[in-house]
Amino acid sequence: MIETDILIIGAGPTGLFAVFEAGLLQLKCHIIDALPQPGGQLAELYPKKPIFDIPGYPEVLAGDLVNNLMDQIKQFQPGFTLAETAETIEKLEDGSFIVTTNKGTQHKAKAIAIAGGLGTFEPRKPQIDDIAFYEEKGVDYFIKDPEKYRNKNVVIAGGGDSALDWSIFLANVASSVTLIHRRNEFRGALDSVEKVQELKKAGKIKLITPAEVTGINGSEHVESIDLDINGAHQNIKTDYFIPLFGLTPKLGAIANWGLEIEKNAIKVNNALDYQTNVDGIYAIGDVNTYPGKLKLILCGFHEATLMCQSVYNRINPGKRYVLKYTTVSGVDGFDGTRKEAEKAVVKSIE
Amino acid sequence: MIETDILIIGAGPTGLFAVFEAGLLQLKCHIIDALPQPGGQLAELYPKKPIFDIPGYPEVLAGDLVNNLMDQIKQFQPGFTLAETAETIEKLEDGSFIVTTNKGTQHKAKAIAIAGGLGTFEPRKPQIDDIAFYEEKGVDYFIKDPEKYRNKNVVIAGGGDSALDWSIFLANVASSVTLIHRRNEFRGALDSVEKVQELKKAGKIKLITPAEVTGINGSEHVESIDLDINGAHQNIKTDYFIPLFGLTPKLGAIANWGLEIEKNAIKVNNALDYQTNVDGIYAIGDVNTYPGKLKLILCGFHEATLMCQSVYNRINPGKRYVLKYTTVSGVDGFDGTRKEAEKAVVKSIE
Ligand SMILES: Cc1cc2nc3c(=O)[nH]c(=O)nc-3n(C[C@H](O)[C@H](O)[C@H](O)COP(=O)(O)OP(=O)(O)OC[C@H]3O[C@@H](n4cnc5c(N)ncnc54)[C@H](O)[C@@H]3O)c2cc1C
Ligand SMILES: Cc1cc2nc3c(=O)[nH]c(=O)nc-3n(C[C@H](O)[C@H](O)[C@H](O)COP(=O)(O)OP(=O)(O)OC[C@H]3O[C@@H](n4cnc5c(N)ncnc54)[C@H](O)[C@@H]3O)c2cc1C
Repeated sequence: MIETDILIIGAGPTGLFAVFEAGLLQLKCHIIDALPQPGGQLAELYPKKPIFDIPGYPEVLAGDLVNNLMDQIKQFQPGFTLAETAETIEKLEDGSFIVTTNKGTQHKAKAIAIAGGLGTFEPRKPQIDDIAFYEEKGVDYFIKDPEKYRNKNVVIAGGGDSALDWSIFLANVASSVTLIHRRNEFRGALDSVEKVQELKKAGKIKLITPAEVTGINGSEHVESIDLDINGAHQNIKTDYFIPLFGLTPKLGAIANWGLEIEKNAIKVNNALDYQTNVDGIYAIGDVNTYPGKLKLILCGFHEATLMCQSVYNRINPGKRYVLKYTTVSGVDGFDGTRKEAEKAVVKSIE
Repeated sequence: MIETDILIIGAGPTGLFAVFEAGLLQLKCHIIDALPQPGGQLAELYPKKPIFDIPGYPEVLAGDLVNNLMDQIKQFQPGFTLAETAETIEKLEDGSFIVTTNKGTQHKAKAIAIAGGLGTFEPRKPQIDDIAFYEEKGVDYFIKDPEKYRNKNVVIAGGGDSALDWSIFLANVASSVTLIHRRNEFRGALDSVEKVQELKKAGKIKLITPAEVTGINGSEHVESIDLDINGAHQNIKTDYFIPLFGLTPKLGAIANWGLEIEKNAIKVNNALDYQTNVDGIYAIGDVNTYPGKLKLILCGFHEATLMCQSVYNRINPGKRYVLKYTTVSGVDGFDGTRKEAEKAVVKSIE
């Protein structure tokens, strides 16, 4: 059982910054995220794109912002349970909580901060009969380990960056790569489109457009797929079928935790501390809603900060907290490091 | 008469960032500040000190943060009325406001954002009879233009960085510099203390400690001062007496604008848009108060952002605003510039 002060669900920018603010108050944090890496939407959806409205950054790449946040919080040594989804919550008599993931990992904490953004990312699935039967039997919606496809025949479907980029990558791994898209036009980074064009000319990627996959065949595993090419039917032998149609976020199990939900988001008390209707459970960042709410990164930072103060008061009832400026008091890490401004000397002049 | 959409009082980090968020909504801003430069406390009190709790910046010098904010907002071409204090406000029948400064400059705006921090900075004055009589007649609490002291005799009092740094600077300008402090120990940056020590040895600064100025003499202008040096009395001829005892912020005239005040701060509606009890007047950053308020830079950023949304609705009633991500929609400056992420191409592959 992992134990901590604040259990944060979601390693997006809001959850990460909460670790820092908690650390300033000497509170320890542990973060659960369904994705294999921290950063939330920024890392998963647009790591190489610039953001222009982070205060003090005229421009910063989403991926760099995540790296900077990880650097900022490292002295507070957050724990991470990655690639697991928080599924169930239980409130104990002493007011603490136990959260269990889809893989059974248990976490005990004095307070819960849900920083789940738009939820966990789930693949958009094509409407094909029996596709569920073939999941993990040749149909993959994510590519976790490309080595799995070495010397196999692979069909990828999709018209965006993921479909383009994985086709390029697997062209040198799989024994054949076929890319199928229902339009002739692809939408992606210019160099990805050009690279696919090149690999097609070199015979390393087979392109079929406009076409749609209409059926999957095989008794125990994918053996072939059926295609509709502009009305004509064709069957292609393949070991794997990988539809890459993008991700949609789903609030998921959290929606059943007894929290007040409105428009797929968790209602919080924005007039005080971003606490939900359940005492001790907070919701910060994109996942919450209140009058005037804006789903912006900078708002999550503020909400995380006020949440930590409230948790501090919850854990240390009656103890008066005096706000300290980092510039004046420095930052004491849990790893023994200390950051501080150069001190003024007090010295007599002879 | 200067006209604008949002008149911001205070060019601290909160006021500056408000210009950016307003600009995204196509609203123009003008800023008044009592200080001669933008940046508020960061520029005036600790420009060379590091801040550790700006989200995404493991460490940033206060002065650099101000420069970055100025850079971030420049395409929205804010107007500045600097070195003037907002003194009076008048609400017109059409719901707009006229704010007039101590120098008589008039500003008309559809909404007012008070981002006045702890207020205007006023010098701490020594308790000396008649000192008010000598103000602008040889007694200065700020040094605006050092040239004023060329070839004059100057007495500086104080034991901190300003007293040390101005003594050093004026040692090469004034015909004599005498530094007086009521303790033997000075408190400042190590190199400043060492430099004063050096200049003292070189005979360029005269040091008298522990000593206190007890009187000022002169019929029309300072001619000499009286000193108490450990109980003994001494009189020193001088043209200027400059007590540098630090600054204290005062809410000042804004306290009389009919706004609800609590603990020297303006009460706002934090459950919605940081508006005050007067419709159309908002208060953001250090200057406001509400349950759970933290006087932190990152909180001012959030408050500024929600305030701008509310002003947008006020100015464009009924028009539905759809939140746009800067990454997706880019940033269109009022100066014709555009910042944007590299666009995905839509292209067919032959
Ligand atoms: C293309 C694009 C451009 C954008 N541009 C901007 C911009 O310019 N400026 C701006 O301010 N914002 C922008 N945004 C929005 C910004 O990305 C979000 O506001 C931000 O990511 C919210 O951060 P968060 O930490 O609250 O949530 P997220 O970043 O969504 O992170 C939430 C995390 O929680 C995890 N999670 C959810 N539920 C569970 C669960 N049950 N168990 C385990 N883990 C879970 C998810 O896997 C995810 O990693 C943009 C968004 C997109 C998609
Ligand atoms: C030594 C020190 C260290 C700090 N360290 C940190 C830290 O590490 N992290 C952190 O988040 N915060 C820190 N702070 C606090 C931080 O500086 C403030 O939260 C921040 O400056 C508030 O910004 P603001 O824009 O609201 O107001 P301010 O920065 O105070 O700016 C307000 C401006 O309004 C002007 N003004 C006021 N009234 C009028 C008027 N009537 N007419 C014209 N102009 C007017 C003032 O001249 C001033 O320039 C620190 C403060 C100090 C003093």
